[in-house]
Amino acid sequence: MKKLIKADEGEIFDIELATDLLAENERLAKINLELLKKHGVKAIDVLGSVGSGKTSLLEQLSQSLKEKYHIAVIGGDLTTTIDTDRIAKHGVDVVQVNTGKECHLDANLVAKALKEINLTQTDLLFIENVGNLICPAEFPLGSEKRIVVISVTEGPFMVVKHPFVFMEADIVIINKIDLAEAMDVSIKNLEKDVHSINPRAVVIKTNCRKGEGIDRVIDALNL
Amino acid sequence: MKKLIKADEGEIFDIELATDLLAENERLAKINLELLKKHGVKAIDVLGSVGSGKTSLLEQLSQSLKEKYHIAVIGGDLTTTIDTDRIAKHGVDVVQVNTGKECHLDANLVAKALKEINLTQTDLLFIENVGNLICPAEFPLGSEKRIVVISVTEGPFMVVKHPFVFMEADIVIINKIDLAEAMDVSIKNLEKDVHSINPRAVVIKTNCRKGEGIDRVIDALNL
Repeated sequence: MKKLIKADEGEIFDIELATDLLAENERLAKINLELLKKHGVKAIDVLGSVGSGKTSLLEQLSQSLKEKYHIAVIGGDLTTTIDTDRIAKHGVDVVQVNTGKECHLDANLVAKALKEINLTQTDLLFIENVGNLICPAEFPLGSEKRIVVISVTEGPFMVVKHPFVFMEADIVIINKIDLAEAMDVSIKNLEKDVHSINPRAVVIKTNCRKGEGIDRVIDALNL
Repeated sequence: MKKLIKADEGEIFDIELATDLLAENERLAKINLELLKKHGVKAIDVLGSVGSGKTSLLEQLSQSLKEKYHIAVIGGDLTTTIDTDRIAKHGVDVVQVNTGKECHLDANLVAKALKEINLTQTDLLFIENVGNLICPAEFPLGSEKRIVVISVTEGPFMVVKHPFVFMEADIVIINKIDLAEAMDVSIKNLEKDVHSINPRAVVIKTNCRKGEGIDRVIDALNL
């Protein structure tokens, strides 16, 4: 026996509420974008599952770019400061946003975080979202570009299972490529999956821990 | 510069709405539990990130237990049927719930799925949630037990970053233990992290693909 149920066929509780929230979030995201533009700050979202390598990427980018740009990082996490502690060691400004039980950053939380940053002296802002490939997809924050980080260790299906987050990605980073063979995951197929959802996405293969591929990320961001 | 913002200090949009939804979910979960009890069905939740090994676990459990019990599996996923297709091959009943953009199953969706299952002839029901360590934690579905599957490939911090999901876990499975060394992740520390959040959780180490540790999962479930 095999049956299929689609949530949108029935009355799931919160569809209408969600629509209102998303519209309000979009309005606030536009205000954030205006504020950032006014101060000449280029903002870049970084999304991905827990353990995909978002923080390692930001450590590498901070280290490589901090002489050229004044960098700030906003980091979202439920309750810890592990990620921003790691990034702060590279001498960039960090604001940790602890979301409690919330599964994503929203434009309202980012607006609060922006108040803690000296935007006049900031050139580049990275916003590391909560580790999650689903919820953050629907909440624009006011950034110009969106990076999605995936790792071969998440198996062969993480792209096809999360179409929404890849639709909006400018750059998709396939990380931990050194483990592809041990994981029996085809990097080529992952790349094909990304491009079948979003042909304009730039796909870059990295080993963020070791710094491999970081120069190509910097090129793709025009930095 | 290092700053910290906590979401619950400010007015995040949907706190009150969320409280109403969670109460309604809890009410429906109790109804599901009653219905399952009435039919003598033992229901078990399976939670974990994408790629952690939930489906491999359920393939192994289905294969090992299908002679002894009549098994049904409800599988949650945004848009695909990849997981339940894999499980269905083992000759158990499956109901796929596609949640669209929703990041978790809720008791309402499970109630709908239960209507598709012949409960009278079912002994054992596994409910595989959407791959996500955050949102599913707050939504009881009506099950008796909750398994959380983590994989060493998710790095060293996935437990401490997601306290809420581990607080409610009966069994925590640490999967892909064969990759711990390559990932430079300490299984011992992960186990310690689980027990510091939830001392009563039974921790079992597995390699689900190869079937290692599955017998201990079956013991822990009293099956």
